[in-house]
Amino acid sequence: MTMDNNTRYNAGTRVMEELFSEEVRTGMQEIKNISPDLWDMIVSFGFGDLYARKTLSLEQREMITLTSLITQGAFDQLRVHLQAALNVGLTKEEIIELIIHCIGYVGFPKAVQAMGIAGEIFKEN
Amino acid sequence: MTMDNNTRYNAGTRVMEELFSEEVRTGMQEIKNISPDLWDMIVSFGFGDLYARKTLSLEQREMITLTSLITQGAFDQLRVHLQAALNVGLTKEEIIELIIHCIGYVGFPKAVQAMGIAGEIFKEN
Amino acid sequence: MTMDNNTRYNAGTRVMEELFSEEVRTGMQEIKNISPDLWDMIVSFGFGDLYARKTLSLEQREMITLTSLITQGAFDQLRVHLQAALNVGLTKEEIIELIIHCIGYVGFPKAVQAMGIAGEIFKEN
Amino acid sequence: MTMDNNTRYNAGTRVMEELFSEEVRTGMQEIKNISPDLWDMIVSFGFGDLYARKTLSLEQREMITLTSLITQGAFDQLRVHLQAALNVGLTKEEIIELIIHCIGYVGFPKAVQAMGIAGEIFKEN
Amino acid sequence: MTMDNNTRYNAGTRVMEELFSEEVRTGMQEIKNISPDLWDMIVSFGFGDLYARKTLSLEQREMITLTSLITQGAFDQLRVHLQAALNVGLTKEEIIELIIHCIGYVGFPKAVQAMGIAGEIFKEN
Amino acid sequence: MTMDNNTRYNAGTRVMEELFSEEVRTGMQEIKNISPDLWDMIVSFGFGDLYARKTLSLEQREMITLTSLITQGAFDQLRVHLQAALNVGLTKEEIIELIIHCIGYVGFPKAVQAMGIAGEIFKEN
Repeated sequence: MTMDNNTRYNAGTRVMEELFSEEVRTGMQEIKNISPDLWDMIVSFGFGDLYARKTLSLEQREMITLTSLITQGAFDQLRVHLQAALNVGLTKEEIIELIIHCIGYVGFPKAVQAMGIAGEIFKEN
Repeated sequence: MTMDNNTRYNAGTRVMEELFSEEVRTGMQEIKNISPDLWDMIVSFGFGDLYARKTLSLEQREMITLTSLITQGAFDQLRVHLQAALNVGLTKEEIIELIIHCIGYVGFPKAVQAMGIAGEIFKEN
Repeated sequence: MTMDNNTRYNAGTRVMEELFSEEVRTGMQEIKNISPDLWDMIVSFGFGDLYARKTLSLEQREMITLTSLITQGAFDQLRVHLQAALNVGLTKEEIIELIIHCIGYVGFPKAVQAMGIAGEIFKEN
Repeated sequence: MTMDNNTRYNAGTRVMEELFSEEVRTGMQEIKNISPDLWDMIVSFGFGDLYARKTLSLEQREMITLTSLITQGAFDQLRVHLQAALNVGLTKEEIIELIIHCIGYVGFPKAVQAMGIAGEIFKEN
Repeated sequence: MTMDNNTRYNAGTRVMEELFSEEVRTGMQEIKNISPDLWDMIVSFGFGDLYARKTLSLEQREMITLTSLITQGAFDQLRVHLQAALNVGLTKEEIIELIIHCIGYVGFPKAVQAMGIAGEIFKEN
Repeated sequence: MTMDNNTRYNAGTRVMEELFSEEVRTGMQEIKNISPDLWDMIVSFGFGDLYARKTLSLEQREMITLTSLITQGAFDQLRVHLQAALNVGLTKEEIIELIIHCIGYVGFPKAVQAMGIAGEIFKEN
């Protein structure tokens, strides 16, 4: 709570380096051209204040993220975070299992669509 | 996949005993009076086919469940699963952390409402 | 399409008399005190333009309505339309069946909550 | 409830043959390559336990399915089920009517998007 | 409330001319070929009864529309209404600001997706 | 972007004093007892980083907030923000108009529920 904004931004940058490849991070920066302030919030708040916290590992955080994205049908972001989930150590089997567990909470359409995208990401790895 | 339906129902019953107190399980059975078939699906499919699977622990499954319930705003069910999460070993700190992580994916209104309910459940424990 | 607005309002009023008891219709009119224009749109557009159309029966329309309300988690309105569904001829068995079918599309939390409310409405009938 | 899992899978397969063309069913099986267990649940639970039940016809079940998909904005799945709805006997007029009825429950954006997709499916028939 | 249906349709047409380019309006009319009745409701109710009302300006109405579309993840319609918002006088800065404000209510995934689309629309202007 | 965290917290506090009565702000602080970190994020990010920005007035920000809450069915938070909207200068007529405009984007159930709550808040003022 006494961190200044540089600290928050730097913490967010470090997390993003663990989650995303350089290529993905460069792609994300297109947002910076439209709105530097949104970019700053993504890095400082989204990754710096939230992901960089203790108590849960990045692996656990990606499980939460994947579940929320599937539940709200945010399939473009799901693609990016499926790769991030693999990068921080979730296995394909665990991701498949997470999607199957979601059937009971979101129904088949979202689970099946998520599994199709997971299949594509798995092929690239 | 060669399990018969008794096996599925029994597997579901065992999981429910780990997740829920006897009182909660008795309360859930009111659904059985309205629709015995829905009850059977809850136990055999919901808990027997989904929760009883391997690869993820019950602790991890409750993290997924909590996240999906928060994301879809299903706060009545959240109450029951917050208690289940504590029962299978998630700590208060981890649950608070999960809710905070969700801010970035669902916004403040759902996160704050979830935290308020978590506070009530924590008091009872 | 050449109907004037009185015709639309009257068509809506007639449908509402088929769907809802006098008590329910009186309760609904509280909206009229806050916004007469919203009330007019509910009657003229919601019931006059939509429900009073041909091609689907009121029974079929209530099946659609119940499904949409369950899917979006609009449980207060679900209560009113469960009674309307019974009033226009859907049986308890058909309503239970509709809710069970929804499991595959919305997951258990919303289906179970809907079934609990259906149980309450069935008791009053 | 005493059905074993082969019976459930076979019941699901028979329903899927009524709903979907061979081409669509073959396409669906890609899911099987990613997760044979998800495929088994789609067939045995989704179609075997849910669609193969009595009390509602396949025509009525597709009305429920279309409505839930429109309400949750699951437009990829809507495409497949619009064709299924035609296959089991819903007419174009009834489908158009269902979408129009939904305006009152989901607003114009989802209804208009659904109608656009329905127009594409109708052209192919 | 004593308007007849021609008046409503004409009022809707006038609003649509303020919001959308001729090209967009022509594209929208494809819906008319599939369902003339849906088209009539879009014009007479959606634009005639709702947008043509007093008390809020078209600029304010587009702020409401953009927010609802972002919140429900209706990104195809968002594209059209981002252009409409510019047409009736919202500035790029105000639109960016609206999207940033939404972070707190819908989370990052929908806000970032909206900002990406806004960037594309801004480039065309 | 060079603000330190005290500045952000203080900016958030000032906005909250404009939006909410002392009683409401005291009630909100219950969250602080459960999770001081969530409270800090609500104040520093939610109100300090988002609401305290320029380009849009608090009146416009509350229009966006109300619309997002109605669209996602967050009716508990809607209650608090309807009062906040009145506090920063939106009139009852404008709020009613906003809810009516939403019909076209979210359908009647959410709009009617919002109007009912608005009626209650208006009575208290």
